[in-house]
Amino acid sequence: MMKMSLSRNVCVVGAGMTRFHHKLHAEKQGREIFVEAALEAVASVDKGFSLRDTEALYVGYFSSDMFERQAHTSALMADWLGINPRPAVRVEAACASSGVAVNLGALAVASGLYDVVLVGGVEKMRNLDTSQVTDTLAMAADTSYEAAMGFTFPGLYAAIADAHFNRYGSTWEQLASIAVKNHVNGALNDKAQYQETIMEIAGKLGERKGLKFKDELEFLRSELNPVVAAPLRLFDCCPISDGAAVVILAAEEVANRYTDTPVRLLGIGQASDSMALHDRDDLTTLKATTLASRQAYGMAGIKAKDVDVACVHDCFTIAEIVASEDLGFFPKGKGGVAAVEGRTGLSGDKPINPDGGLKAKGHPVGATGAAMVVEIYKQLRGQAGRRQVKDAEVGLTHNVGAAGATVAVQVYGR
Amino acid sequence: MMKMSLSRNVCVVGAGMTRFHHKLHAEKQGREIFVEAALEAVASVDKGFSLRDTEALYVGYFSSDMFERQAHTSALMADWLGINPRPAVRVEAACASSGVAVNLGALAVASGLYDVVLVGGVEKMRNLDTSQVTDTLAMAADTSYEAAMGFTFPGLYAAIADAHFNRYGSTWEQLASIAVKNHVNGALNDKAQYQETIMEIAGKLGERKGLKFKDELEFLRSELNPVVAAPLRLFDCCPISDGAAVVILAAEEVANRYTDTPVRLLGIGQASDSMALHDRDDLTTLKATTLASRQAYGMAGIKAKDVDVACVHDCFTIAEIVASEDLGFFPKGKGGVAAVEGRTGLSGDKPINPDGGLKAKGHPVGATGAAMVVEIYKQLRGQAGRRQVKDAEVGLTHNVGAAGATVAVQVYGR
Repeated sequence: MMKMSLSRNVCVVGAGMTRFHHKLHAEKQGREIFVEAALEAVASVDKGFSLRDTEALYVGYFSSDMFERQAHTSALMADWLGINPRPAVRVEAACASSGVAVNLGALAVASGLYDVVLVGGVEKMRNLDTSQVTDTLAMAADTSYEAAMGFTFPGLYAAIADAHFNRYGSTWEQLASIAVKNHVNGALNDKAQYQETIMEIAGKLGERKGLKFKDELEFLRSELNPVVAAPLRLFDCCPISDGAAVVILAAEEVANRYTDTPVRLLGIGQASDSMALHDRDDLTTLKATTLASRQAYGMAGIKAKDVDVACVHDCFTIAEIVASEDLGFFPKGKGGVAAVEGRTGLSGDKPINPDGGLKAKGHPVGATGAAMVVEIYKQLRGQAGRRQVKDAEVGLTHNVGAAGATVAVQVYGR
Repeated sequence: MMKMSLSRNVCVVGAGMTRFHHKLHAEKQGREIFVEAALEAVASVDKGFSLRDTEALYVGYFSSDMFERQAHTSALMADWLGINPRPAVRVEAACASSGVAVNLGALAVASGLYDVVLVGGVEKMRNLDTSQVTDTLAMAADTSYEAAMGFTFPGLYAAIADAHFNRYGSTWEQLASIAVKNHVNGALNDKAQYQETIMEIAGKLGERKGLKFKDELEFLRSELNPVVAAPLRLFDCCPISDGAAVVILAAEEVANRYTDTPVRLLGIGQASDSMALHDRDDLTTLKATTLASRQAYGMAGIKAKDVDVACVHDCFTIAEIVASEDLGFFPKGKGGVAAVEGRTGLSGDKPINPDGGLKAKGHPVGATGAAMVVEIYKQLRGQAGRRQVKDAEVGLTHNVGAAGATVAVQVYGR
């Protein structure tokens, strides 16, 4: 059965990412934005780092096949980084691709074969139009039993929201509060796709239509925030994005070559659940989140209450609420209330998605798990600037594939 | 730099595969043939094995995206195997996907986190027609600088053959001898796509056209073996196949739960080379094969001459000749001569591809690396039946992605 520890400890010694954006990278290929992120990770290493120090590369890329008609993006990235003949591996686990890749990188270091590995993720989604992107993402669900019946991800998460509303009395206003909070945070993050609060956006969009909104809710209830899949509206959905993120992992015994303040990977977890939503007993929870986080907590020797800051997978606003419960931050059914009370804001008792989350930062799917590690790395080193969570000592990343068929969790400490 | 050992030793304790075929699996999905292979692997375990003993799953699948419009095939396979919530990872490294997956599985066991993992590969290619398959496979080359210019894999390997002919005086007749030998072996393998010698095929095809052939070369020079990309003809190319293969890896200290005669994984290696062929200094060698095999030999503490039986990546006949040199079995430029002399036949001094190789056994690309391990597992346990290599104690697998941008090698011992 699952062991509680690795053969040796693993640290993060560098981290970088491109800005996530829907237009900025239009003229670039995935290989170019991946290299851009890697070079920022290299530049972030306190005592310097040469790409030639890399002993292996793990790349999360959900569907280079569909987005770029390019596969074998492991070897491609190694080639463009100039690190041949180092071994390279592409990892695909839907939107959890690079969260899973980080776990693999950690196991590779723990195995004793490598001391230093590069782990990252990338997605170049905006080569396709929105409906093509939606169809491509739907390949992460069960193509035969879900996508073929017309179920795409907004619909799947809408079903989760419906179930949560019915079981716990959660409300759309609670969902809206997640979007508001994540845009507030995104406005403080120069890597975010949307660096504006929802009131700022409401002002701009309203002006074009001759409309004025007294608060966020009035805007979010308006025609400018149309229903995508009831009860989810446009601002309940993360955007489509291009981007890349890369982190550098090192065995604890060599980490001090690179920095005096590494961030330690205290625990990892990963779990699978049924591909198809209709095979689940309970739609109000992602069982794989619960199991993966308990593994990570167990390995780290901590409890949910010890987490000071978390990046959770808010592909839809409901997903953040469900995650905040399944991770053990709040009792089941109370995630929405906690969000409305501001407990997950930057100055709350359990800050979630200080970087703006998938909602405001963007969600180039293969890059998201690694980008969460970039944020936690900054937060735990006190380098998060205007969005710094005070006294953050323990951080968590939570990366979900599809509607929870794969979940990868990591716990980090100073 | 690269270590010479893992934190703990890893064994193979079970192995199974479907038949590889272009028609047999037409009505099945990838998930179904993967499960079929896994169940055979389970049934092969001497002292019994429950799928619930699996602690993690690694799946090589090159392009489920294009072939089945299905991604996230990690979680899908875990679901269909009934092993949720065990973590699952899809690995993509072109035609080396499951060879790389085996290396990852080994690192995962070595890391101390898991004692028992399932590693396999699958490809369901025959959903597409031949030209679509060729285009999909070309995504494993550099889409922008090779495929976009019309280079597909027969052309890339034809360039390698041309270079080898020019440099070393190798001949098309030497290539033909590889096809002849691999069909002889495939005829002895009930999992092979083609279980007929080339003379048997020549007899059947000739009869339809009213032609008779006195030997293989006359047939292979005839119009019935058309040129695909000079100098490569149809029988120089492996076929398009559906299929799956799965192996069970266990930490050495628990292997005796499952069998008294495990096969030990003595060494692993993996290397990357430039994606585009035009970036290479020398087309007559796959540098990544040389490097990956030297890593594996080093970890195993053996030399090339100690290998008793090898499965090498003969996607085209020239690839087997080049591999037999790069792996150190024969001096550079002498692989073709060695093949013609029968040294790589079942009773030669260096038997290669006793299972028929990709040429006759078939090449469902994601499954090929794992299928090589299935064969070596049988050979080293003396269970290879009519194609058993006498006194095989050390076996090697050599799995190539694209034209050598990724190579994974393993060395196994009794």
